[in-house]
Amino acid sequence: MSAANRPCEPSPAEPPRLVTEAERLARVALSCAVEPGDGTTSSLVGQLGAERALQRSLSATEGEPGEMLAARLRAVDAARQLDQAARCGIRFLVPGDPEWPPGLDQLDDAITDDGFGGTPPGLWVKGPMPLTELATSVAVVGSRAASVYGVEMTRAVCAHLALAGVPVVSGGALGIDVEAHGATLSADGVTAAVLACGVDRVYPAQNRRLLHHLASEFAVVSEQPPGSAPTRPRFLARNRLIAALTSGTVVVEAALRSGALNTAGWAESLNRHVMCVPGPVTSYTSRGVNNFLREGRGTVVTHGAEVLELVGAAGEHLVDPPRGETRPRDDLTSVEAKVVEWVPVSEPAQVESIARLSGLHLRTTEGALRRLRSKKLVQLSDEGWRLVPDA
Amino acid sequence: MSAANRPCEPSPAEPPRLVTEAERLARVALSCAVEPGDGTTSSLVGQLGAERALQRSLSATEGEPGEMLAARLRAVDAARQLDQAARCGIRFLVPGDPEWPPGLDQLDDAITDDGFGGTPPGLWVKGPMPLTELATSVAVVGSRAASVYGVEMTRAVCAHLALAGVPVVSGGALGIDVEAHGATLSADGVTAAVLACGVDRVYPAQNRRLLHHLASEFAVVSEQPPGSAPTRPRFLARNRLIAALTSGTVVVEAALRSGALNTAGWAESLNRHVMCVPGPVTSYTSRGVNNFLREGRGTVVTHGAEVLELVGAAGEHLVDPPRGETRPRDDLTSVEAKVVEWVPVSEPAQVESIARLSGLHLRTTEGALRRLRSKKLVQLSDEGWRLVPDA
Repeated sequence: MSAANRPCEPSPAEPPRLVTEAERLARVALSCAVEPGDGTTSSLVGQLGAERALQRSLSATEGEPGEMLAARLRAVDAARQLDQAARCGIRFLVPGDPEWPPGLDQLDDAITDDGFGGTPPGLWVKGPMPLTELATSVAVVGSRAASVYGVEMTRAVCAHLALAGVPVVSGGALGIDVEAHGATLSADGVTAAVLACGVDRVYPAQNRRLLHHLASEFAVVSEQPPGSAPTRPRFLARNRLIAALTSGTVVVEAALRSGALNTAGWAESLNRHVMCVPGPVTSYTSRGVNNFLREGRGTVVTHGAEVLELVGAAGEHLVDPPRGETRPRDDLTSVEAKVVEWVPVSEPAQVESIARLSGLHLRTTEGALRRLRSKKLVQLSDEGWRLVPDA
Repeated sequence: MSAANRPCEPSPAEPPRLVTEAERLARVALSCAVEPGDGTTSSLVGQLGAERALQRSLSATEGEPGEMLAARLRAVDAARQLDQAARCGIRFLVPGDPEWPPGLDQLDDAITDDGFGGTPPGLWVKGPMPLTELATSVAVVGSRAASVYGVEMTRAVCAHLALAGVPVVSGGALGIDVEAHGATLSADGVTAAVLACGVDRVYPAQNRRLLHHLASEFAVVSEQPPGSAPTRPRFLARNRLIAALTSGTVVVEAALRSGALNTAGWAESLNRHVMCVPGPVTSYTSRGVNNFLREGRGTVVTHGAEVLELVGAAGEHLVDPPRGETRPRDDLTSVEAKVVEWVPVSEPAQVESIARLSGLHLRTTEGALRRLRSKKLVQLSDEGWRLVPDA
């Protein structure tokens, strides 16, 4: 897609906060040595700044709890990492950079009770799209084992978002994720993938073409340094980034233990919109979504327009409440409406009885019945008047 | 089914309130002349008692607003109505009768802004089952145009309720209603139909056998006197009785303008449980249910057990939260669990790297990896250790 189609140009940035080279290198070192989701280190960085946090972490000696981290930190050559990444077209963003997504800073307020989470030291990004474009984005996530229903809904929602110029963020995984990216691209929309491995790696292998395309035309994002392998905790950590980078998360399909519900949980902790597409209770891949709703969490969405209404600026994308189809009965005069209410649905009644029930004069009732008959709402037989079935 | 299977015997009644013959006859007159859902008359009865309300209503003279009602009341021969009904095996219940369902009295507190609703003057009942058996009942309602999904869910929920001894109330209509009655009967459960016409009439004609069976073995209920035809306002009035007679209403399927949502609305006004079975957003007959949930109304239910949990006495029918299947990973020692977290999902890693990431000694890590391998969670190749796909 052309740059002109992109919905939001980088907003006029505040005067860029000066990020010193020393701070950037400190954050590279932390990014390479600290496992994602290490809330303790993240809090330390928040308190002391990256350089002092790095010094503090490096100072742990043998036998101290931080010994392993200190050893890993000492092994990092930050300048070389940065240089190698740059040669692969990978940039490293840190807080203070104009492109740094401000939503990530809120992650320090959503660290779990067991210390998981926190703002990452930096983000590794491959691709020409500035992350400022994700300011109004929506996450669309779900099961790897997607059903036909889930695939259909993902396509419909993402196409709708794309046409409205709302970028779609997902995890580049099989199933709902790859459909979300693909449907957005098909509708000339903007989409970015957030990975649990380095942005130079391809996981899962089946999505090679998609991930290469995103890295060359849009953006692939990770808090993991290039070369990192995906592990389970890294997937969980990645989910918090998807939630934090977007205005809301749509869970299209999720089994009971799906990672998509983990993303939804992060979105909830971050006060983002959590939007759930309900599904048949008989479907394995909707059980997690339905159960999430059953717990009173998340809002039901049944259409892309409802997603837009929730995440848009106030009043930007209002949706008419669904009304069902219009029925002939909707266009009656008040007298006709009064009369039709009292025409029996089964065994016919005489005009007199209908007039008595509706409290109208006999002639008024008779006139209304004739007009209702020409509108094919009532029928007259030898036994009297009755409703036309299913009118 | 035998009486022994019935879940709740008539509870030891309070000493029966004495209902005078005059009051009963006054209520028969009101039941025959006042249209169901006339909140004004209902309030008058609540204030003055039935006899004085009847006198007041009879006194309206020509030109006064209540003139038509007065004329209709004068035309009723209450004693004869009662006698004729009794000869057809139909009884007339009024407040104060031991069999009168106390839930109906709450209808006077749920009259709509335009004066619709209120406690009916009495109930016409055909069938041997005392309505006291409905004290713990659940309403199961939905679209006349039911889908296969709706029919399946209705059967599953009603069979579950029947086995737990919870009576099922529905409207005797086509679609979900007839399935609800039928599935309950098939599971030897207790079920009653609340009609919009007289209990001696058969509407819809297709359900003749079912309605006759309910009238001879269970109960068919209406606030309309025998012989009355079904009209639209009478269906709406009937819905409030279904909601008031039960502990909660399950909406299995409903299009956007389905009458089942009207019943759910009454249940909501009466502080009964409103339980919704979500469905595919692509299904016409689930749109109303999904939209109801989207408005933040009702609780998602996906199984009969969840219905029981909501309507049961506190702690009576507790449901384990759904957990998803157990995975081999759930049964690991804490060391194994720590190690497996750091085994890459795709490209293999060496023991050293896994030990470093997990913060464990090399030999501990190696031992855990071997045990994980015998549990088929990880695999070892020439390049190192990786997870078994989808383990």
